Amino acid sequence: MVLMRPFKHPAASEFALERVLYALSDSIRLEIVRHLARVDAASCGELDGGRPKSTVSHHFKVLREAGLVYTENSGTIHMNSLRRTDMESRFPGLLAAILSQQTPSAS
Amino acid sequence: MVLMRPFKHPAASEFALERVLYALSDSIRLEIVRHLARVDAASCGELDGGRPKSTVSHHFKVLREAGLVYTENSGTIHMNSLRRTDMESRFPGLLAAILSQQTPSAS
Repeated sequence: MVLMRPFKHPAASEFALERVLYALSDSIRLEIVRHLARVDAASCGELDGGRPKSTVSHHFKVLREAGLVYTENSGTIHMNSLRRTDMESRFPGLLAAILSQQTPSAS
Repeated sequence: MVLMRPFKHPAASEFALERVLYALSDSIRLEIVRHLARVDAASCGELDGGRPKSTVSHHFKVLREAGLVYTENSGTIHMNSLRRTDMESRFPGLLAAILSQQTPSAS
């Protein structure tokens, strides 16, 4: 069995506004965050929309580095959750203002 | 005297959330928008922070294409203003939620 290394996550004090906005400036990443806002946690497989693993891994890395997503190993799968409390403490109202916007549904 | 072509600006109905977030994901562009939020209009020279014209022109293009900034020719200079009303009509509360965040001051 392969041991999976834990993922790195920035502390809330290290969050940068520009990085959060960049992370949410891509429709796939925005869709992942919208999905996570509706559930407690989800595996990468539940969130990838059938896209190639390499593509999706990159998007999760960008989301983690921005502080939006927390990923942990759960057996052999990665479970992801939205860091809603940390984001709210660092950037009050930001995530709600972004996720409340109407956007054309991603194809 | 050189005739300057008018700049292209998207209609509010064409604004895309991802594009707005991308435009604001850069600290120079965010600084320009913060400045424009405090004044009625400003020339590129007042907003460039002494940066090279080529660099700043690109940033203004990104801001215009996102719908954040309106640029018009005024004699031989370009005057820029924030499209606050259009942005508010398309994405209510978004700009205020972003600009209200505390960020480290840009160097």
